Amino acid sequence: MTDVDFCVVGGGFAGLTTALRLKQAGRSVAVLEARDRVGGRTFTELREDGSWIDRGGAWIGPGQDRIYALMNEFGVPSYRQYTDGEAMMVVDGKQYRYTGTIPWTMSPWAAMNLGAIFLELGHMCKSIPLEAPWTAKNADKWDQITLAHWLDRNILSKPAHELLETAIAGCYTSAASEVSLLFVLYQMASGGGPSFVLGVKDAAEDARPVGGMGALYRPMAAEIGDSIHLSQPVRHIHQDADGVTVRSDELTVRARRVIVAVPLAIASQILYEPMLPIDRSLLHQRMPSGAIFKIAAVYDEPFWRRDGLSGQSAAPGSPATVTIDACTDTGRPGVMCVITEGPIARQIGQLDEAERRAAILGALVERFGEKAGAPVDYIEQNWSAERYSGGGMLSHAPTGVLTQFGHALREPCGRVHWAGTESSAVMCGWVDGAIRSGERAASEVLELETVTALEGRLHRL
Amino acid sequence: MTDVDFCVVGGGFAGLTTALRLKQAGRSVAVLEARDRVGGRTFTELREDGSWIDRGGAWIGPGQDRIYALMNEFGVPSYRQYTDGEAMMVVDGKQYRYTGTIPWTMSPWAAMNLGAIFLELGHMCKSIPLEAPWTAKNADKWDQITLAHWLDRNILSKPAHELLETAIAGCYTSAASEVSLLFVLYQMASGGGPSFVLGVKDAAEDARPVGGMGALYRPMAAEIGDSIHLSQPVRHIHQDADGVTVRSDELTVRARRVIVAVPLAIASQILYEPMLPIDRSLLHQRMPSGAIFKIAAVYDEPFWRRDGLSGQSAAPGSPATVTIDACTDTGRPGVMCVITEGPIARQIGQLDEAERRAAILGALVERFGEKAGAPVDYIEQNWSAERYSGGGMLSHAPTGVLTQFGHALREPCGRVHWAGTESSAVMCGWVDGAIRSGERAASEVLELETVTALEGRLHRL
Repeated sequence: MTDVDFCVVGGGFAGLTTALRLKQAGRSVAVLEARDRVGGRTFTELREDGSWIDRGGAWIGPGQDRIYALMNEFGVPSYRQYTDGEAMMVVDGKQYRYTGTIPWTMSPWAAMNLGAIFLELGHMCKSIPLEAPWTAKNADKWDQITLAHWLDRNILSKPAHELLETAIAGCYTSAASEVSLLFVLYQMASGGGPSFVLGVKDAAEDARPVGGMGALYRPMAAEIGDSIHLSQPVRHIHQDADGVTVRSDELTVRARRVIVAVPLAIASQILYEPMLPIDRSLLHQRMPSGAIFKIAAVYDEPFWRRDGLSGQSAAPGSPATVTIDACTDTGRPGVMCVITEGPIARQIGQLDEAERRAAILGALVERFGEKAGAPVDYIEQNWSAERYSGGGMLSHAPTGVLTQFGHALREPCGRVHWAGTESSAVMCGWVDGAIRSGERAASEVLELETVTALEGRLHRL
Repeated sequence: MTDVDFCVVGGGFAGLTTALRLKQAGRSVAVLEARDRVGGRTFTELREDGSWIDRGGAWIGPGQDRIYALMNEFGVPSYRQYTDGEAMMVVDGKQYRYTGTIPWTMSPWAAMNLGAIFLELGHMCKSIPLEAPWTAKNADKWDQITLAHWLDRNILSKPAHELLETAIAGCYTSAASEVSLLFVLYQMASGGGPSFVLGVKDAAEDARPVGGMGALYRPMAAEIGDSIHLSQPVRHIHQDADGVTVRSDELTVRARRVIVAVPLAIASQILYEPMLPIDRSLLHQRMPSGAIFKIAAVYDEPFWRRDGLSGQSAAPGSPATVTIDACTDTGRPGVMCVITEGPIARQIGQLDEAERRAAILGALVERFGEKAGAPVDYIEQNWSAERYSGGGMLSHAPTGVLTQFGHALREPCGRVHWAGTESSAVMCGWVDGAIRSGERAASEVLELETVTALEGRLHRL
């Protein structure tokens, strides 16, 4: 039985940040992490040659002030994502090269469609109050239609439709038919609009920490020290008038409050006593994760750069749906990152490893030439197979969920508090959102402590 | 450590039927039930005066042959639901009395709207292949729009809209914005169409077992005998080449195969080793349950009958949304059943017990007169607070789920098999569907056993 001020469930960025801020405020903490590593939905692999691979969340961008502040705190520099050269779009087997965000070369009609949709989405996003998207003027209307339906109604160009469906639904690692339009608008707004979410340069994939996300979460974990307990999936959280008792198979932690910082579908697997309020219980059943493969094909050098290509490509329906240059700041070795999400990720998940590798590399060869077929290393991360992620990088809200249950995303349930990127009003879905949620959760419990102390003093007057 | 042929998780009608059929086939079974009672989402309370209250699933109807067969097997007679007299519709505070399914007295325009919608829904239902609704010609189209959206587009009359939204979404104990149109059509088709689902006489609430559902599940449980282990929530299911190991906090059962017969959201709380195939894992995150209160107000006699009322009423938005006469076959005492589902159930869940009772009885008084305000007994069942139901009577599919993950509803995952009304192609959502799923699961594992035995014999040739 460990006795601490606060218990934190989950050692991803949300949980680590919560624990770090609480420790820095002089409180004792215990972090229970289900896996044998910290990092959660980020996971940096260090390679023998000194380079690294981010097997999970990797990028940062403007507006993500909290992760930049944290990097600053730990002396982690950033470097810009490589974006020189042309990006590529593959539609119906044809390749189109282009620069910028909109693939004008593909077809002016498709490009106009894309441009118009970006404008329209941006316009809609502006009406979303980030702290309470369910209060938006059109919240009820937008929360009863799916992204798929809205795209069907609003895009006439088939290739533009495919591209946008792949790009937007991809963010939620699920099919467009599964995601509420209101949730899409909210999530986009929380990042600053569609250009941020779907863009690379000066947008969501603008830069990376030197050393990968691990260069940040490792020193955070080191500062928290032996308060972190790995391989401790939490099974029970019991709260009473004085505190909480948090139990994994091996450990029991007694604390004044607990902060649960895991994805919704994982939080639902914990037994809460007494039961959580009905809206939070039902929310746990209503924000699923999806399927995503993130693959790194490693080459001696980023040969595509010499061919005038940025490495960025999008090919709706391909087993290698999206690619992006994922080299370190030194540009050596060459790392091509492949991201495949949602229905196609589930399809390629049916293949055995060798078949999947062949399909992925085959697609890379078509886009980047023969050299792409012979990587020196090939690293595959199947997030759907991660028991304690429950799937891809962001839980999404199906229709009807945000308007009815959204208020429960952050509301503490007695002594049980919530963190995790899904609970952040700003940069919801990014590492920055996870960090913000952890800082908010830490302030929340500290503030409540101050209130309790003050009330106690008043009582004694 | 208990060693049996087959382990069954869950002692609702699906699990009990599975175990019963396996036992009748000469196999040994162990049923692990999380609660301290069997019955699952049915729960019959026996009263001192010899009457009974069904606190959960209660009704049966034509086409539900498997529950009738089972009742026959155990000598349980049925009796018809009381439907004499007029039903009542309350819209905008005004009461309208009517007979039949469509409230013609309300407004001819609203009634025409309702009639047209019934026809249209019936027409659409006809195109749904029950065994694989995801193969319907319009499956993709219907699975990307919500019931709420479809109703908005297809009903012009506001009262008709409210009534239909309340009645249909109520089946799923959730908001209309949460439910996929394809799922609605499938679930309706699995019962024989909208008139069955939304009707009473000769429809889904045509009759009841004498003695309530307990008159059936009790003798079933008795025949299964001490193979049923109560208060044993299953935490782990581990499968290997030879069998499965199923563990609750206290018991370990070793069996050749396990049949999991619990709602999806509850199945998701079990730790499976190895992990389930991705589509099943993701399905577990994607079929939530909803909120429902079922209340019985007990009076000396069913006084409403003398006033020419059937006891049936519907009042969208009211804390007592739907009422129905729930007397036993003797008609004494008078039992008025109130069912409140979805968003309104969540709202009245916020009230304390006394406030909720006052609100419910107040609504009954408005509809049935002063006598309704003074019941001799008042029994409230809040299914959302049942930890091991996870909410109301039927898990629903949000948009995009059936077309992508529907195939996983029944597909065994190695030695892990699935039962539960949600897995039944016929009468999905009713007790009859649960029974069918249990019989299917029992046949499934017995058939596989025969195959294995035959293969063994061939191997020895």
